[in-house]
Amino acid sequence: MLLFDGAFRGGNQLRSPLLVVGSLGLDSLKTPTGEVEATLGGTAAYFAMAASLYTDVWLVAAVGTDFPPAYRRALEERTVDLTGLQVLDGETFRWSGEYGADLNVAHTLEIHLNVFSEFHPTLPTAYRQAGLVFLANIQPALQLEVLQQVEKPSLVAVDSRDLWIQMSRDELTEVIRKSDLVFLNDAEIREYTREANLVAAARSVLALGPRLVVIKKGEHGAILVSQEDGMFAIPAFPHELVADPTGAGDSFAGAMLGYLARRGGTDIGALRRAVVHGSAVASFTVQALGTERLAALTMDEVLQRCRAFRYLTQFDDDVEGVWEKGT
Amino acid sequence: MLLFDGAFRGGNQLRSPLLVVGSLGLDSLKTPTGEVEATLGGTAAYFAMAASLYTDVWLVAAVGTDFPPAYRRALEERTVDLTGLQVLDGETFRWSGEYGADLNVAHTLEIHLNVFSEFHPTLPTAYRQAGLVFLANIQPALQLEVLQQVEKPSLVAVDSRDLWIQMSRDELTEVIRKSDLVFLNDAEIREYTREANLVAAARSVLALGPRLVVIKKGEHGAILVSQEDGMFAIPAFPHELVADPTGAGDSFAGAMLGYLARRGGTDIGALRRAVVHGSAVASFTVQALGTERLAALTMDEVLQRCRAFRYLTQFDDDVEGVWEKGT
Repeated sequence: MLLFDGAFRGGNQLRSPLLVVGSLGLDSLKTPTGEVEATLGGTAAYFAMAASLYTDVWLVAAVGTDFPPAYRRALEERTVDLTGLQVLDGETFRWSGEYGADLNVAHTLEIHLNVFSEFHPTLPTAYRQAGLVFLANIQPALQLEVLQQVEKPSLVAVDSRDLWIQMSRDELTEVIRKSDLVFLNDAEIREYTREANLVAAARSVLALGPRLVVIKKGEHGAILVSQEDGMFAIPAFPHELVADPTGAGDSFAGAMLGYLARRGGTDIGALRRAVVHGSAVASFTVQALGTERLAALTMDEVLQRCRAFRYLTQFDDDVEGVWEKGT
Repeated sequence: MLLFDGAFRGGNQLRSPLLVVGSLGLDSLKTPTGEVEATLGGTAAYFAMAASLYTDVWLVAAVGTDFPPAYRRALEERTVDLTGLQVLDGETFRWSGEYGADLNVAHTLEIHLNVFSEFHPTLPTAYRQAGLVFLANIQPALQLEVLQQVEKPSLVAVDSRDLWIQMSRDELTEVIRKSDLVFLNDAEIREYTREANLVAAARSVLALGPRLVVIKKGEHGAILVSQEDGMFAIPAFPHELVADPTGAGDSFAGAMLGYLARRGGTDIGALRRAVVHGSAVASFTVQALGTERLAALTMDEVLQRCRAFRYLTQFDDDVEGVWEKGT
C-alpha cells in the first residue's frame, strides 16, 4: 500500500556520499545504569556510525594527538572516510556529563574544548562534491565556512543547540536560510522561534526557506514538518530500559540522511521511511552507554525495529467504518 | 489491509449501553486564549458528550438545585439518559482553574465540592445491566460502590488522579484489580507504580489484573498497553492553536469506549481504532473552551480527523526495503 505518490519539486535525486562536519570527542558519561570514561563521542561520531550503516560517509572534524587509534579504526572499519579529519597539536575535545533518573537532560560536569576551539573545517577537494551535507551542532560560523566550500549539494541538513541560539542567532539564521532540512529539539525550536506551539514554531522555520523541519522530542518521538506534505509524527520506541540518551539525535539524523542517500531520493514516502529509520537507529543508541550499541548494530536489527515501529503505530483502514448512531 | 487477526480471549462481545459514573459541575476556566464562567463541566459531562456520538449513555452523578436546565437539556438532546442523575439540596460542584502558556498543567484557583461531597452513586435498576462501565475520576470508595451494583459488565474502565493515589491508594488498587481497562496520565501512572519508566509502569498495572492500560500523555499522545497485543502508540494531533485542555482525557475515554460499544467488540484492531477515535475526539475538545467544541461535534468531523490521523502517522510497507550497503 503506497499512501504517497507525490514527489518533492526538485532535489528528488540525491548524490552520495554523505558529508558530516561536527565534533569528535572523548566523553565521560554517568547515568543511573552505569558510567564510562573517555569513550568515543561527539556529534560526528554518532552521526557517522549511524549513517555508515546505509552509505559511505566523509567526516570532517578535529582531534588532538591523544585521540586513540582504536577509535579511528572503529570509524574506518565502517567505511567512514577520515581524510578530512584534522589532527591538531594538543588534546581532544572532552565532555563529561551526568543524567538524572528521568534521563531527559544532560548535566554538563566538565567541558574542555581543547583543539576543538581552533577548528576550522577544511574540506579535501573530493568532499566539495558531496551530495548530502550534515552540519552537526558546531558554531554557526563554522557551518557557514562548510557551505562556502561545498558545490551544489542536493541536500543540506543542519542541527544546532541552545548555546548558538543564544550567542549566534543571526549566523544560525543564515545557516538555516541556506539549508533544506533543519533538526532541532522541542526546547530549541521554541527558543529559536519564540513560539510555544510546536506547529507554529515549525512553520516559522519553514518560512525562512528550508523544505523540511524535524522536531526531535526525545522520549516523545519526532515530528517531520514539510512545505509540501504537512506533518508526519512518530512516537519514540517505548523501551523498558533506557541506558543513555547521548547521541540519540545525531544517530537519528545519521540514519535518516543515510537512508535518503541510499534510496537516492526525497519523495514523500522515502522521507517518512527515513524518519522511521532514524527513530529505529536512535532507539538502539539509547540502549547502551555511548556509541557501544550503535557500533555493534546491524541492518537486520534496524529492519526488525522498523517492523516493530510499524506494529507499534499502525491501525487499519476500517478506522473510518463506524455506523452512525441509531443505524 | 488488516494487520491484526487475533482477538482477545473472552470479553470479545460487548453489550451496550455505556454507563458513566462521575462528576457534573460548573467550571470557570481561564486560558491564554479566553475565559468562561460556570460552564458545563465535570468528568461525566465530557465523557458522555463524547461517548454519545457513538452509543446511548447512562449517566450517574449528583448536582444541586442550581444546575441549569439548559445543561441538562444539552445532555438529554444527545440521548444521554439522566434517570440516574441525583438532584440534591444545595449547590452544584464548582471548579475554577487557570492554565499557563504551556497549557500543560491546570492550576486550581477554587474548588467547591458542594453537593458532590454527599454523593453516593445509586444505580437505577436498569443501569445494573450496563455492558460497559466507566468509573470516571471520583473517590475510589465510590467507584467500588458502583461495582457492587453492576451485574457482570463486559468491560469496566477506570480513571483516577494524583489525589486518590496519595489519599486512597489501597482502595484504588482494589478498583484497578476489578477493572479491565485503566486510564492514567503519565505523571499519575509513574506516581501510582513508583516506576519512572512508562513501559515498566504499565506492566506493573497489568500485573494487577487489567487487560488494558491507556497512558494519556497530553500533547504527546497516548499509549495503549495490553496483555495480549503489546503496545500501540499514537501522537496527539498537532494543532497550531490549543485553547483549553480541560476534559481532553475524559472525552478521549468517552470516544474510545463509545466506539467499542458501537462496534460491539474488543478485538485488537477495534481497540487500536478506538484509541484513534479517542485521540480524534480529544483533539476537538481542546480547540475551544469547556465543552463548547465537543457539544457541536459531528461524526463526519470525527471521521475526517481519523483520516488526518492516518495521514499523520502512516508510512508504507517499503520501510523494510533498504539495500544492504555495498549491494
